[in-house]
Formats: sequence, structure tokens, C-alpha cells
Amino acid sequence: MPGKRSLTSRHLDDLFSQYSIDELAEKLTPDTTSPHVPYLPNTKITDARTHRMWRSLDKTPSEEIYDTWSQSKVETFQGNIENFIGTTKIPLGVAGPLRVNGLFAQGDYPIPLATSEAALVASYHRGASLITAAGGTSAMLLYQALNRSPAFVFESMRGSGRFVAWAMEHFENFQQITASTTQHGKLVDVGTTLEGNHVYLDFEFTTGDASGQNMVTICTQHICDYIAENYPGTIEQIYVEGNLSGDKKASAQSYTSVRGKKVSAEVEIPAPLIKKYLNATPTQLVDYWRVSAIGGVLSGTMGVQGHFANGLAALYIATGQDAACVAESAMGVTRFEITKTGNLYAAVTIPSIMVGTVGGGTGLPSQKAALELMGLYGSGNAEALAEVCASLLLAGELSIIAALATNTFTRAHHKLAR
Amino acid sequence: MPGKRSLTSRHLDDLFSQYSIDELAEKLTPDTTSPHVPYLPNTKITDARTHRMWRSLDKTPSEEIYDTWSQSKVETFQGNIENFIGTTKIPLGVAGPLRVNGLFAQGDYPIPLATSEAALVASYHRGASLITAAGGTSAMLLYQALNRSPAFVFESMRGSGRFVAWAMEHFENFQQITASTTQHGKLVDVGTTLEGNHVYLDFEFTTGDASGQNMVTICTQHICDYIAENYPGTIEQIYVEGNLSGDKKASAQSYTSVRGKKVSAEVEIPAPLIKKYLNATPTQLVDYWRVSAIGGVLSGTMGVQGHFANGLAALYIATGQDAACVAESAMGVTRFEITKTGNLYAAVTIPSIMVGTVGGGTGLPSQKAALELMGLYGSGNAEALAEVCASLLLAGELSIIAALATNTFTRAHHKLAR
Amino acid sequence: MPGKRSLTSRHLDDLFSQYSIDELAEKLTPDTTSPHVPYLPNTKITDARTHRMWRSLDKTPSEEIYDTWSQSKVETFQGNIENFIGTTKIPLGVAGPLRVNGLFAQGDYPIPLATSEAALVASYHRGASLITAAGGTSAMLLYQALNRSPAFVFESMRGSGRFVAWAMEHFENFQQITASTTQHGKLVDVGTTLEGNHVYLDFEFTTGDASGQNMVTICTQHICDYIAENYPGTIEQIYVEGNLSGDKKASAQSYTSVRGKKVSAEVEIPAPLIKKYLNATPTQLVDYWRVSAIGGVLSGTMGVQGHFANGLAALYIATGQDAACVAESAMGVTRFEITKTGNLYAAVTIPSIMVGTVGGGTGLPSQKAALELMGLYGSGNAEALAEVCASLLLAGELSIIAALATNTFTRAHHKLAR
Amino acid sequence: MPGKRSLTSRHLDDLFSQYSIDELAEKLTPDTTSPHVPYLPNTKITDARTHRMWRSLDKTPSEEIYDTWSQSKVETFQGNIENFIGTTKIPLGVAGPLRVNGLFAQGDYPIPLATSEAALVASYHRGASLITAAGGTSAMLLYQALNRSPAFVFESMRGSGRFVAWAMEHFENFQQITASTTQHGKLVDVGTTLEGNHVYLDFEFTTGDASGQNMVTICTQHICDYIAENYPGTIEQIYVEGNLSGDKKASAQSYTSVRGKKVSAEVEIPAPLIKKYLNATPTQLVDYWRVSAIGGVLSGTMGVQGHFANGLAALYIATGQDAACVAESAMGVTRFEITKTGNLYAAVTIPSIMVGTVGGGTGLPSQKAALELMGLYGSGNAEALAEVCASLLLAGELSIIAALATNTFTRAHHKLAR
Repeated sequence: MPGKRSLTSRHLDDLFSQYSIDELAEKLTPDTTSPHVPYLPNTKITDARTHRMWRSLDKTPSEEIYDTWSQSKVETFQGNIENFIGTTKIPLGVAGPLRVNGLFAQGDYPIPLATSEAALVASYHRGASLITAAGGTSAMLLYQALNRSPAFVFESMRGSGRFVAWAMEHFENFQQITASTTQHGKLVDVGTTLEGNHVYLDFEFTTGDASGQNMVTICTQHICDYIAENYPGTIEQIYVEGNLSGDKKASAQSYTSVRGKKVSAEVEIPAPLIKKYLNATPTQLVDYWRVSAIGGVLSGTMGVQGHFANGLAALYIATGQDAACVAESAMGVTRFEITKTGNLYAAVTIPSIMVGTVGGGTGLPSQKAALELMGLYGSGNAEALAEVCASLLLAGELSIIAALATNTFTRAHHKLAR
Repeated sequence: MPGKRSLTSRHLDDLFSQYSIDELAEKLTPDTTSPHVPYLPNTKITDARTHRMWRSLDKTPSEEIYDTWSQSKVETFQGNIENFIGTTKIPLGVAGPLRVNGLFAQGDYPIPLATSEAALVASYHRGASLITAAGGTSAMLLYQALNRSPAFVFESMRGSGRFVAWAMEHFENFQQITASTTQHGKLVDVGTTLEGNHVYLDFEFTTGDASGQNMVTICTQHICDYIAENYPGTIEQIYVEGNLSGDKKASAQSYTSVRGKKVSAEVEIPAPLIKKYLNATPTQLVDYWRVSAIGGVLSGTMGVQGHFANGLAALYIATGQDAACVAESAMGVTRFEITKTGNLYAAVTIPSIMVGTVGGGTGLPSQKAALELMGLYGSGNAEALAEVCASLLLAGELSIIAALATNTFTRAHHKLAR
Repeated sequence: MPGKRSLTSRHLDDLFSQYSIDELAEKLTPDTTSPHVPYLPNTKITDARTHRMWRSLDKTPSEEIYDTWSQSKVETFQGNIENFIGTTKIPLGVAGPLRVNGLFAQGDYPIPLATSEAALVASYHRGASLITAAGGTSAMLLYQALNRSPAFVFESMRGSGRFVAWAMEHFENFQQITASTTQHGKLVDVGTTLEGNHVYLDFEFTTGDASGQNMVTICTQHICDYIAENYPGTIEQIYVEGNLSGDKKASAQSYTSVRGKKVSAEVEIPAPLIKKYLNATPTQLVDYWRVSAIGGVLSGTMGVQGHFANGLAALYIATGQDAACVAESAMGVTRFEITKTGNLYAAVTIPSIMVGTVGGGTGLPSQKAALELMGLYGSGNAEALAEVCASLLLAGELSIIAALATNTFTRAHHKLAR
Repeated sequence: MPGKRSLTSRHLDDLFSQYSIDELAEKLTPDTTSPHVPYLPNTKITDARTHRMWRSLDKTPSEEIYDTWSQSKVETFQGNIENFIGTTKIPLGVAGPLRVNGLFAQGDYPIPLATSEAALVASYHRGASLITAAGGTSAMLLYQALNRSPAFVFESMRGSGRFVAWAMEHFENFQQITASTTQHGKLVDVGTTLEGNHVYLDFEFTTGDASGQNMVTICTQHICDYIAENYPGTIEQIYVEGNLSGDKKASAQSYTSVRGKKVSAEVEIPAPLIKKYLNATPTQLVDYWRVSAIGGVLSGTMGVQGHFANGLAALYIATGQDAACVAESAMGVTRFEITKTGNLYAAVTIPSIMVGTVGGGTGLPSQKAALELMGLYGSGNAEALAEVCASLLLAGELSIIAALATNTFTRAHHKLAR
């Protein structure tokens, strides 16, 4: 049985070796005969409520989840979780120090990385150490903008056109609404997508030192409320988000413009340092990346890079960012070249880093401590954190590309994993 | 100053309001004059080593990071982290129970979700409760395959062609090598991409109950070693991974075929339950999603969905999966329709769920406890976990789409966030 | 031999059934032993030169290619072709009239379509007739911009940053250079992409009634020359196009913004007309398109549509547009819905229509005649032509979707093809 | 008025400078008051019918469109067009000879190119001459497959699953149906996409020497008819094409697998020939392409290449291929490197070349003459034509990249265009 068909058939054969098709269909059949009561939703977080939650699970509290530390801090989690039963503990390692020469970040940063993947911290640490030895990265925050894209439905395109004209005229009103809603965010621009009788406005905000997803939602809601009350024509439907903003997704729109913070970081490294830290030559790295960049292009990714997601996820988790944003942030471009003087030139550009230093999970105990370790907790630090983040990803690219270029990748993983 | 140019100019103006261009350029200049010693890499995890790590950071151990629980378990983290300094604690909530009628998953599952994002657990919980009330999802694991794609460089395409012919003939040898390397994984197929004098082989493995990234790397390394020793012609370069596998990236290749586990899940829900749980009508949901699906298409995502990444990240973290895989897993299709009888039909299809129930972070204390809570820890459970995961994402789509369709999204976030 | 491997193996087996691997490799070997003189390049087009070209091919002129009509017009082709040997004749059919209610296009247009694909004209004609009967499309030109994106290479990102600051300050100079280069084009905006030590400027021009690719190239060259002479710092390399413009390619950037002309067109059609012209019901069309839109999403296209490329290619060829631009233009979104009153609502949005009514091939004899048939030859007509083009694509979507929804697609093709 | 908003506003200002919003809305309003009779559809092509078609346009036949040559051949167009009014004449130039050392193509080919774009033929000619001087390309047809993807709708996923199991069992029946429908095509494989209660089967055919779109449609229709009659369960809807096949679209699925013919071609060229033919050095080309490849990646294209669409469109038109297929074919990868010996290595890989040497427009008079000029008309030549096509695109990449690398691109276009 040849070809793609066999992929399906192999799967079916596996299934049919145990069950008949009727038995399988039976398995998929909804069961409404045995009702089950949902756990009571619980938004208030106290020790008593936590115990009640465990009881509704018919379990005694697990010490691994509801440990004494978590118990003692229980009320600090209020506002970050519902149906609380304890905490997940992710091992935290530290890489670096990573020297960053940025528009905003300046200095040698310890990098807290929360992960359960063996070799990840070691790999980023190796790259960070090399970068620091070479004088650090140059890193530039290029732009920042967080968007919400409400959708408006009209009877016909004539309605769409009239509305767009009106909305453009009322931009200053929308800015005032934003200003009266938040002190930290600012409405800076709006894109317009008219598709037949649909209009999607793409509001772009700056969000201060917060990552800002909630802030922009609330501002956009107020603008939508204003539109609903003041627009002189008929709008069939108003939705605060029309799924055009790229929120929590790798999207072409975010990739070709910006979502969150767009940063480029580079480093130039003499060959002896490459030898010392990576046991490789610049030529080996460049030769490998040439093959690997084509591999990425052939696989059809947005941008071409090695493993941005690894560093992003570990740093996001460690510092209380929204880990789901890894989906939208792990896009961009890695580049490796040899300079005229035989050094290695390496650069990364990431269009959608989603980080904040206030709000979200940044105030949780261990996450705040991690940001403090970096000296980046609180107001005035988000731009620096984004530049550090890009520099970290550059460190990770250097390290993994060296491992793959010199065929030590497998060994490193084998040795460090259990 | 109109147009896109103004986006750049605004950013430059902000910068120049504080610094001259020379000052800014100075900030970016590498600094090799003040050397810094990297923290000693540390792979062995003991209490003493952890304290040493803190000393190399010039800090006393933070109680929020190196708490007594983490201290008492310190050696359990060996093999999952390097340069260990403690743990990050992510609040853990539970949604459900979620009823799944799958080929592999059968029953009412509590869903542990680790997140710091307000409203996330509440939203998934609402969707899960609704699904359970409607009899549960039908969920089908469609395929599974994890790939590694080594790259081979030849002098010319003639070399590429000869090698492909040889490799196809030696597939059984590659299978034997795999069989002698792991008891859990199996080499099941190989794709071939010839691009000039490059060849990328795309080995597809099943990985038993592990997510399996390390397993397939080691097997592929062994195959590459065999090729290096036995191929009668000249291979200029062999690389164990040529960046074609889609590892840690949203890729067209993974999206159109499979990476990890491909699952489709559906549910049919009568209007009264939609009313009771979501305070909405099927028409409202379908009307919103029609607009929103177009929004997704206009933003240029692979697939069209609402917020897969939220549920994925929270479940991955809670159960010890690799959180970086959110980047590759958060693709797929959500569909909402009204049936002839007026019910709501909703379905999700996700081509690249990366989950295991052994290995990786699944054995860490709190993560293992979370899997045990679901009854899905250890061998024989990975396929069920994938079906539960898809069902969870369906729950999340139902809930967020209802919130956006009825304009309660903002209020929910406002109320639940601090 | 199962799976993907068998796809490669089947191909290899076919080859090896006839030749050994050495024979195959021999076939691929370059042959430098038998030199061949290239045909003399010939840019001047006269009858004598044309005959000389045929002689260099060792052939007598083919009457099918160098017919008497082509011979009599030979000098009209000067400036549109080199190494001229005659003409390719594409059958030309006419669809319509197509009623367009646009911002620029107003009236009932005959649509010339050059194609060799059976059923194509008949299908577009059917859709156009239906639209006209329903009162015509509403069509809006949304934006227009044609871009060139020169690339600049610097020693480091500090150089990139300095250059961007300088370039933003000199935008008015760039506009003046443009104004002194062309009367028809205008430099309206510039986007900036900084990637490490690379900068890509994305100049956006309006191009009057020409499609304008040459115009924007020449203007950009002059700007680059100005930069080379006037920039006070060091630029390692300047390239007039850095492959970022999306020229001749389906690109995310063009798709999410605009390249050429962006147009949305819609029509609302009562059920009886759907019945009369398409022998279908609105529900049938909407049901089919729902399945088919998901099919498009699953296949991973930019946008979701049925067959934009068919109408685009046929209209582009008939009216002297650049047929290669089909690659960049055939993206966008088709939408079908049922209105509250039971009518069919249909809309298309196309972000990158590349049409002109002067320049390029628009002045060639048969192409000019086709534009004149539409009343759209020459200055002042390009915007109308773009709205007609979008309306035509809407007609095509209506017709093919009806054919596929009612299972008459195959029959129509069978009957009309030879 | 800054930012993106100004793009919309500028457009609105232009409009409002001439018309009020009410006047603009009025322009878009459908007009059902002045009915217009559609031209009579006309599928039979005779001189009389052609004149009747012109009369229905209220015109006398244009001599540029309905010239004496077209009149004399009128009946040869039967089956390729409807509503015939004459022909569009595209200037035809010839490039080459192009030496191809392929698995199927062997020899020095003149390349007919139909285009109205100045410099296109000259550019491809230059590249072809260089390649021939270097001994020709090596070119490998890698695979071939043309697909149709019918869609099947079920009440629930249980229905989908049952159907897939049945369909896999009946593959041989589908092959027999194909065999009894066509002598030239063969059903070789089937992919399966299950998405909730939808199933898309992706039938892959070989199509002999025809491009084969009609052939695979008819075969798939017969298979669907068989399924409708023989499937024991309930299928809600059957559609012969569910828009998953990538027909006439750049799709991720075609890009990562194959649609039509997948070919890789390479050439290695000594520096002196680069100097002689392109007045450049290998380093200049490689330096430029490195910048340009990143430009392509940043713009978000599938694959990275320079201008495949130009050569494709010109060759497709000249040889009677379906010009709309440029949309699906213009994807792939270009690669430039310097070899250890200082030569230039260049390669292209194109996954979806859609060419035939019988059927479609290949039998039209001038198109057939063009294929005969190449020695590739009729049976047994399609695979060779695909290898020539890929080699041509490689020639075009060499030439344009040299022009852009040496800053002669603009001058060449300026000089050759009118």
C-alpha cells in the first residue's frame, strides 16, 4: 500500500487491530446520560476556598501543588488565576551575565530561565558568555505598538465607506477616550481594513511598561461604546476584537509590521572567541546556517530562525509574561555572516516581543524576584527588557547553531537530560 | 509628516528628544574593556551548588525563588535544568470536568491550567462545563509523527541524486538502528527534499508516550553516524538537523501534515445550553465567528482560530510539557455552524499537539501531580492527553467566541484582573 | 513500501527501470565540449532583423508566428520585446456586459478575456450577466501604492540607525527627485525595515495611469544615486531593490497592505436571479463556500478565494498588463452570505491589482483595441480598470462556486473543451 | 495627521476634494432600473458567429483583434474559448540556446518567450547564454502529481471516520475508475484531511503529457459519482473540489509537497564567464543575493526567489500553457554560493511547474509552432519541458541578480523600454 494513503491506512490498521469500526464510533458518541456537576467557579483566592476546590475534585490537596510556600502566599495570586489549587513549580536556571549595549538596556544582565528542558539553560548560558566576552550585543528597540482590532458590520459597502470616513474624523476623540481611560497607554495610530460590508479598525497603542493586552482591550471597548452611541448611521454589529490583531498567533500582519516590541540585536565576534566558547570556526557556523536557513525557507516558516521559542518561553515564564504569547513572538530572522576581517557577524530581528515589567504576572512573588535579579522590575524597564530578550535569543542562536554545525548537539542533549 | 514614515519618525523623535545621534550610537557600541566572568556552568543540582550559584550572582538566595519546598526537592530537578537557582511558581487553576469521548480519552477530566493571566481559567472552565453538559466532545487522534530532518551537502546535484537512491534502499537499516537505540520510538517514514546539492531527509518517528524530541534526535544522530560510515560516495557535510523539521516554529509543513499529534474534536450543543452557560444564541456565535474568521484570514495566520495558544500554554506548563512548543502547536482551524435542527456545531482541528506523559518535565513533582489529577501520568496515556488537549481548546474557543459575540469579553477581563 | 518514502521510491523505480544510476548521473553532467554560439541579441525590431533572428534559429519563419499581420506591424513592437520572431496569438472572448457602480468605474463594461482554457469565458460571462441583472457591483478602490525597496548595507547596526535618521530627514529631497524624474508618479510614503546592519527602505509611489514598475525603478535609482552622493557616512552597498517589495510574488507584505491597487467589490442578489442564471439557491452557494473556505484555509493560501488567477490572467493578457503580475495579484478574500431577506451577499477584496491604461503593453495594437472596447484606454482610466477587474473576479467567483455547489463544474468543462 | 491613519485619510481627502460622501455613496448604489441584455453566449466558433458577437458589442470588428490571420484560422480556436471575437497578439522573442542536461531534457533549446515587458527576453537570453557557455544546467524532475480534492460533509465526525475507513479500502476501485476514464492519467495516491464532520480527499494523479487539469476533474467526478452510489452510509454533501488542491493559488500545501512537476536545476560557473557575460564577480552576486534573500524572507513569501513569475508567464503564454497557473507556479527557492574553487554555484527548486505538451492551448497554431521550435510538441515531452522551464528560471535569476548586484538593472530597463 504505497504513498500518503498508507499514512492514513496505517493509523486505521492500528485502530482496527483492537476495535471494530462500530466500537470506535461508539467511543466517539456523546454521553448525556450521566450528568456531571461542574466545579464551582471560584475567583476569590483564600486558603479555605482552595481547600474547597480540592474537595470538589474529590482529592486531598497535593503537597506538590499546594505546598506550604504556596499556601503562605495564597492571597498574592488573587487576580491572576481562578479555581486556584496551588502552583506549578518550574525549575529556574540562570544564564549569563549577558552584556547588552542597547538604546535602553545597558549592562551585564543575569538571565533567569524557567524550563524543564535539559540543556536549554546551558545552551543559552554558553551563547551569553560568548557575547559578553565579545563586548556584548548592540540592540535597538525599533518600534512598539500593541493593537486591538474591533470589527464593524454594515448592511453594505456603502455603510462601510461612510463609517471609515467618520472614524478617521473622530480619531482625536478616540485618543481622548483612551487618555481618560488609562494613564499608561496612548492611542497612536489606526489602520483600516475594509472588506465588503465589514470594517476592521486596527487601533495601535503604546502601553507604557505593561505588556498591555488588558489595557488596550478596555480602551478599545470604551471607543466602541462611544462609536455605538455617537455614530449617526446604522451599524449592524460591533465587536471589540475581530481577530485581526494577531493576538496569540503567528500572523503575517504582526510579522511584517510590529506587535508589542520590535527589536534588532547584533554582535561581531572574533574567531578566537568562537573557538574558545563554541569550539568552532566562523566558517563552520556560516556554512551550517546557510544550509539551515534554506531548510527553514523550505519548511515554510514566517521568518527564518533556529529556536527563538526556547529562550522566549523560558524568559517569559521566569519573568511573569504571558507564556501564550510565545505563539506570536517566535517569529523573526537570524543572520550569520563572515566579515571582511574574518570575524563572525550575527544578528537577530524579532518583530513581536511581548513583555512588560508591571502588570500581568510580573508582580507574582517568584516572577518579581526574577525581574529584580535582572534589575528590571517595575516602571521604566519594559523597553530594556525587550532589548535583553532579543539579545538572549541571539545568544541562543549562536549556541544551537554551533552545536549543530559541529555535531555536538545530540551529545549535549544526551548528557544533560536524564 | 504623514504615513508609514511617521511611524519611524515618531520613534526617532522620541529618542532624539533625549539624546543626540552620537550619544545613541555610543550606547550601541560594544564594550570589551570591562571583562566579566561568566557564572560557572553548573549541571549537577545540589543544595550546595545552588547556594554557590547564588553567590556567583552576588546575591543571597531569594525566598521567593529558592523556597523551602524547592530546597527540599532540589535533586528532583537534576536533568531538567542547569545553573539551578530555584523555581518559578505559576498559579495553577482547574477547569472542568471536561467530558471527552475520544478514541483514546474516555471520561470526565479535571484540567489543570498554569497561568498568570486573569480570566483564562474561568473562560476555559465555562467552555468545559458547557461541553460536559452537552455530552462531551467527540475527539479523534488522526495521526502521530515526530520528525527530525538531517541535512546532507554534496558537491553537485548528481551527488544529491545518488544519495537519495542509496538512502531509500537503506531505510530498513535506518529502522533497525532506531530499534536498537530506543524501545519506545519507531522510525515509520521518511520524506525527501532535494534542493540542488542539498538533501534534507525528513525522518518521521512514533515516540510512544514521550513527546520525544530527544529520542528522535538521538536516533537520527545514530542514523547519520551510520550514513557517514557506510555511504560509498562523498558527503561534504552531514548535519543532524537542517531546520526543516518545524521544531519550535509555526511552519507550513507541520500545518499541512502533522508534527506530534494531529487531533480533531467536535461538539454539538442545543441552544438552551448555549443560553444557560454562555448567555448567547447559536446565531450570535456563528455571526461573530464569520466576521472573526475573515479577520484571521486577513491577518495572515496559518489556519484560523481564536486563542489556541492560551489553553495550550497553560496545559503544557501545568503538565510538564515543553512550553516552547506553543510556538509550533498554536495553529489549526476552528469552525462554528448551525445545524439543521438549530443546534450549534463547533469543531477544532490541531495538526501539531506536542504532548507526552513520560519524560521531559512530566516527572517533576507538581507536574506529575497534575497529570495524576487527570489520571494521565505515565505510559499508555499520551494519545488520550492529546485528545483531551484538543477538547480543551474547543472549550476555550466556545467561551471566548461567546464573550466576544456578546460583548462581555472586556467586562470579564476587567473584573477578574487586578 | 509504505508512506512518503514510497513517493520518492516510485519515482526512482520509474527512472531505474530504464537507466542505471550511473547513466542518470551522466545525463546530468555539464557538457562544455561542444560550444554553442548564442543567438545575437537583437533589440531593434525590423522585418530584416526578424528574418535574421529566424536564420540564427536555423529555421524559416513560421507563418503561425510571423504572420502577415505581425509582419505589417513589426515596428509597433519595438520597446516591448527583444529577439523578436513574431507573435503569440491568444484567443480572445468577451464577457458581459458587466455593470460596475464604482468610485471610478461607472457603467456596463464588455470584458475582453484572452485565454486558451475552455469554459473560462463562459463562466465569467455567466457571472457578469447575473451581476448586471442584479444592478451591478458596488466597487471601491481603497488605496493605491507601488513600491520599490532599495537595500543598504552598513558595517554595523550603528550605521543602520544613523542612516535611517538621515533618510527620514531627507524625505522631501527624495520627493523632489521623484518630481523631477516623472510627471506621472509621486513619492507618497516610505517604510523602514532595519535588520541588523541592513536597511530596506520601502518607497511607495502613486503612478498615475501606468502600472508603473519602470517608473518607480527609475525614481528609486535616482534617489539611490542621490543618497550615494550625499550621505555623509559610509554605506557598504546600495542596491536599488532588496527583494522586499513583493514584485512578482505573492507576499505577506503586499497581502496585508497594498501593492498596486486595493479594491473591494460586492453585490447583493435576490434568490430568483440566482435560480435563473446559476440554477442554484443562495443556500447551496453558501453551504458550498463554507466547506470550500475551510479547504482553502487548510491548504495554506494567503487569503481564501476560488480562482482569482483565471480572470486576472485573461484580463491582464487581453489588455496588455504584465501577465507575470498574476503571481502577486492572485491573493485576497471571497465571502458569501445570506442576508436577512434571503438574498445572496457576495464580496471580494483584492489587495494587489496591478493594472495601467498607459505604458507597458497597453499600447500594443490588439491590447489597445481591447482597452478601447471597454472605453478605458489612456489617461484617467487606471482606477476604473482596477474596479472593473475586482468586479470581474467577483463574477468569476459567483460562477465557479455555483458550478461546484451544484455539481455542474465537470460537465461544463467536459462540454466546452475539445 | 501621522501614521497609518494618514494612508486612509489621504485617500479619503482625494475623494472628498471632488465629491461629497453622499455623492460617493450614490456612485456605489446598484442600478436595476436600466436593464441590459447580456451578449448571447456563443461556444461555436465560426466567422459568422464572430461577426455576430461583434454586432452584439455594437462595434465593427477591430482589425487589430479580428485580423485576417485570426479570421483564416477561426475554427482552430473551437474548444479553447467562448464568445470569440479574435485574438490578442503578444510579441514573441527567443532566448538561448539554453543547454539543459536533464533526466529528460537533453540539448540546446531555443526558448520562446511571449511578453510585452521590455528587457525580459534580453535578460533571460543573457542568463541562458551564460549557462550554455558553462556547459548547461543539471536539471532533475523530482516528482509529478496533479491533484483534485473533493470534499464530503457528514452529520458528525463519526460519519467522517467511517467514510475515511471505507475510502481507504476502495482505493483500488478508484484507480479502476480512473483507468477506465482516461488512458493518459493514473491515480497514484490519496491524502486524507479530516476536519470535524468534513473530509477532503486529495487525489493525486499522473497526467501523462498533458497539464491535466480537466483530466483529473473528470476522473474525480467519476469517483465521486461512484462514491455517491456505493457508499453504504449517509453523505450530506459531495463536492468535486473542496478548494484544498491549490488549483490556481500559491499554497503552502503545494509549496511543501508538489503540484504539477517539481524540478531542481543547478549550474556551476567559473568566474571568467561571470565576468564576460554578466560583467560581475561571483562575490558580487553572492553578496547581493544574501541581502536579497533576507529581503524576500522579510516580505513573507513562500520560498525565496527573484522573479520566477517573469519567465514562467512568458514561457507559459508562448507555449499554450494555462497562464493563470503562474499564480501557483511562481514559488520556490533560489540559491547562490561560491564554491571552494571560486566558481559560482547557483540553483533553483520549483515545486509546482504546470506544463503539458498536449492538450489545453498547446495545439493552437502559434503555440504549437513555438513548442515545435523547441522540439517539444506532443507526447513524450512534458517532463523535458518542465526541466527546461526550471533551467530557464535559473537563467533569469542569474541575469536579474547580476543586474541588481552591479546596479545596471535600471539602466537596462530604461534603455530597452520605450
